[in-house]
Amino acid sequence: MARGTVTDVERRSHPRTPDGRWKTALTSIAPNAILIRGYPVDEMMGRLSFADAVYLLLMGELPPPAIGRMLNAVLVSSLDHGVTPPSTLAARNVATTGAPLKDCVAAGILAFGPHHGGDVESCMRYLDRGLTMVRGGDSLKQAAEKLVEDCVRVGQTPPGFGHRFHTRDPRATRLFQLAMELELEGEHVQLIRAIERALTRREQAGGPHTPVNVDGAIAAISADLGFAHELGNAIFLISRLPGLIAHAHEERLRNPPMRQIDPKDHNYDGAAERRLPEGRK
Amino acid sequence: MARGTVTDVERRSHPRTPDGRWKTALTSIAPNAILIRGYPVDEMMGRLSFADAVYLLLMGELPPPAIGRMLNAVLVSSLDHGVTPPSTLAARNVATTGAPLKDCVAAGILAFGPHHGGDVESCMRYLDRGLTMVRGGDSLKQAAEKLVEDCVRVGQTPPGFGHRFHTRDPRATRLFQLAMELELEGEHVQLIRAIERALTRREQAGGPHTPVNVDGAIAAISADLGFAHELGNAIFLISRLPGLIAHAHEERLRNPPMRQIDPKDHNYDGAAERRLPEGRK
Amino acid sequence: MARGTVTDVERRSHPRTPDGRWKTALTSIAPNAILIRGYPVDEMMGRLSFADAVYLLLMGELPPPAIGRMLNAVLVSSLDHGVTPPSTLAARNVATTGAPLKDCVAAGILAFGPHHGGDVESCMRYLDRGLTMVRGGDSLKQAAEKLVEDCVRVGQTPPGFGHRFHTRDPRATRLFQLAMELELEGEHVQLIRAIERALTRREQAGGPHTPVNVDGAIAAISADLGFAHELGNAIFLISRLPGLIAHAHEERLRNPPMRQIDPKDHNYDGAAERRLPEGRK
Amino acid sequence: MARGTVTDVERRSHPRTPDGRWKTALTSIAPNAILIRGYPVDEMMGRLSFADAVYLLLMGELPPPAIGRMLNAVLVSSLDHGVTPPSTLAARNVATTGAPLKDCVAAGILAFGPHHGGDVESCMRYLDRGLTMVRGGDSLKQAAEKLVEDCVRVGQTPPGFGHRFHTRDPRATRLFQLAMELELEGEHVQLIRAIERALTRREQAGGPHTPVNVDGAIAAISADLGFAHELGNAIFLISRLPGLIAHAHEERLRNPPMRQIDPKDHNYDGAAERRLPEGRK
Repeated sequence: MARGTVTDVERRSHPRTPDGRWKTALTSIAPNAILIRGYPVDEMMGRLSFADAVYLLLMGELPPPAIGRMLNAVLVSSLDHGVTPPSTLAARNVATTGAPLKDCVAAGILAFGPHHGGDVESCMRYLDRGLTMVRGGDSLKQAAEKLVEDCVRVGQTPPGFGHRFHTRDPRATRLFQLAMELELEGEHVQLIRAIERALTRREQAGGPHTPVNVDGAIAAISADLGFAHELGNAIFLISRLPGLIAHAHEERLRNPPMRQIDPKDHNYDGAAERRLPEGRK
Repeated sequence: MARGTVTDVERRSHPRTPDGRWKTALTSIAPNAILIRGYPVDEMMGRLSFADAVYLLLMGELPPPAIGRMLNAVLVSSLDHGVTPPSTLAARNVATTGAPLKDCVAAGILAFGPHHGGDVESCMRYLDRGLTMVRGGDSLKQAAEKLVEDCVRVGQTPPGFGHRFHTRDPRATRLFQLAMELELEGEHVQLIRAIERALTRREQAGGPHTPVNVDGAIAAISADLGFAHELGNAIFLISRLPGLIAHAHEERLRNPPMRQIDPKDHNYDGAAERRLPEGRK
Repeated sequence: MARGTVTDVERRSHPRTPDGRWKTALTSIAPNAILIRGYPVDEMMGRLSFADAVYLLLMGELPPPAIGRMLNAVLVSSLDHGVTPPSTLAARNVATTGAPLKDCVAAGILAFGPHHGGDVESCMRYLDRGLTMVRGGDSLKQAAEKLVEDCVRVGQTPPGFGHRFHTRDPRATRLFQLAMELELEGEHVQLIRAIERALTRREQAGGPHTPVNVDGAIAAISADLGFAHELGNAIFLISRLPGLIAHAHEERLRNPPMRQIDPKDHNYDGAAERRLPEGRK
Repeated sequence: MARGTVTDVERRSHPRTPDGRWKTALTSIAPNAILIRGYPVDEMMGRLSFADAVYLLLMGELPPPAIGRMLNAVLVSSLDHGVTPPSTLAARNVATTGAPLKDCVAAGILAFGPHHGGDVESCMRYLDRGLTMVRGGDSLKQAAEKLVEDCVRVGQTPPGFGHRFHTRDPRATRLFQLAMELELEGEHVQLIRAIERALTRREQAGGPHTPVNVDGAIAAISADLGFAHELGNAIFLISRLPGLIAHAHEERLRNPPMRQIDPKDHNYDGAAERRLPEGRK
């Protein structure tokens, strides 16, 4: 054909760097050698926990032990929340059609919209807005009051606060306790605690009960650890992936295909409440 | 309208269990109490590694320490493989359009097709076919020879063997070494080693070089740990998720939007090769 | 770093065609000129129906008018099936989280598993298996009996037959009627009608009622039109996409976010039954 | 176990409507009767084009013939754009792994991010912002100048304008021509033409060349037809779906699995440029 194809046009429209190549700094691959951020992956195996390795990949350096322990706790915190989140239901609805497990999981991930999971990133941005006020001269308390006021004025619950079921989210409480014990509390955690106090004052004056939730705790701790906003949601995503897998797998093991899944019509028939053995410190 | 809706029809077509509800055994949710397989999640946080918690959720019980360590190594093994796997490229192509990070990751997961990642499940089924022969009276060596023969006859590489880049996959080597050290070798690992030897004999007789790969090692070890076939792929998926996240995030940090991504045209410009500090045993 | 990157390794492992480029025969793009299968897209606009253009893109040539009309009918047939299919529920569960519309739709598409939508491709393969028998000397009736027998023996309903709600699928009936009117009936339609008769004989002898369904009709007609097996499912997918869009959009217009969606608990409150105006022949 | 499950908590938190059910107005399903917006689907088949049926489903009423013809043209306009859009590359990267066709397509859809496809919705919102100015007393020209100024000030190209390859998008030209011929031009089309003129004036004064593109034309026409913002993107999505299907299918027909797909390294080898036969008015 007479007319040229897109190839030459595009080549012109993408000027190249001096050596003509784009760059990656994550992993280098050569025959029989895989280096993640410079470390041979086979040397990492058996020596680093998965959480340590995730930190290395995302942040570029090995985490100090306290951060490794904190990140393990963050990843455990959102592992699963039963059958009722929309992400779990999306995964189960795909599972009932006989689709591959990966498809069930991908559908579940797509359900991490602004109202579900996406709150981590919103809360990180919200806290950074407050810290800008602090750097501009406000006290933590003043910044917290202004942040809350901004939400109240437009009738919104601050991101990272409020929960459909829990009046006191046990995961948030535990994350803040660990951050303190491991001496990892930073300015984002301090600010979110100040927002908590501001909301409590409003509640005492007749306002609604809006406790900090696990998204808020993950947001504040991830930000203090230096994760980019976009990676805050990603940490929730890594944490919840096994939950999506477990539900898609259970759906197929215990139910007929092509069933209609009513989220309110189930019972839990698993292990009764139990405590971790003493050995697990 | 005169005609009824689907509701009544369907209600009739789905007879209910005695108490009229479907069941889940994974997680129970009550106000301020989240129990995963019976354990309060806040008690798990700070005490269990993420890998331990994943095992608990998927298998129903806490792993013994050796299994927890093995699973951490398995999850580290496939964390990332640079920019060239199709899953990474799918994720980067979605990232360049400005789509949310979760969308990039979901697209990457969809690329875990039969030729990529899906090999774990195929290999688990393949090994179980061999173990059926063993239970029928064959020796490991005989079963391995028959399994290899079945593939060679139809011109296929056995699932879990061969690699586009590596002539000796360092991740497989390390996983088998750890399985031995941790005394977790079972019949699936023994069989896959027997298949390796059968393939080496064929190579010495002029056949191709088809080393065991990381998918094969994950398959054998996961099967020995008791994971269902479907969950073998899931373990690869959990392992690789941070890699998809890291690439989608790096794509946006270092490149203009709507660029055309040529997988062969990049350079690695990250950390030089380095060793883990002594402290990390 | 001393070790090379993947680039050179891969370049070697992918020998190139003589001119060093891979090929596409679908669409050529030059500045201000988009040719689909050779036709300028701006010339197609206003002259071809969408269904005609889809046929051109997938098959390479313009459809004769009868085929264009048939394909329009096929695409209309599966436009929507109310709120209860798992694909619709997956889309609605993603919609309730505030995720972008495209994410809702992608999740719905992932639910087109083997038991839902995927049946078109299975049925096309099933019919082609029967036609191989016919070419081997069987009559249509003999081939149909053998195909049914194969399914009955393993306790399966033949692909393209049976429906959860409908005892006589009005879409299948209408598609076969149109294929006859438009003189497009081919050997696949003849075979599926023979299978219908074989199943009716079994029903009269006490067997279950398993009417041909819309998937079966689409499969037979698509195969007669020359579509590849993989494209059979694709036609269902194009047909249902607007349904997924409509449900995701309605979910957000009419319901609060983060609701729990019970598929059995709804009512239809739309337009009452009505007839097309005479003008629409 | 002593603690209750989520069921009762949730039931309380979702007060029901008087009849205790949620509503849908799209499609009603009864045994052997499928009514889309009140019309029996089997009556629609053979009488309505797919585009007509899509309009009915999304908008609730049958389109007048001119609108049906316009919508067919809109759906044809974005059918395919060759191998270089990131959505196509995402679909091909999934296809090369052997994943199901629906997975390839879903990954492609996920790539319709803000910079690709998502522009339709942005442009609809942009135009509606301008029409608010008009209703507040501005002339079309004044509103257009203000809208352009808003973008120029922050260094952005107005949504719906500019193209990587085309200096004059033939699809936009044709869509506006059809809107005029079919007497469907409304205030959104008038405003976008006014923005075009404002940009031309700036170009003549030394500004860049930013022609209206197909996204802009779809946005203006969809808005004039009354589609909600969210549905503007959806129309692009319906239009491009067959393109994603065609590329995923071609990828597998013509290339080896697990290849590395370089978007700049291809040639078109399909039909040479040709004209529609006279018969197709």
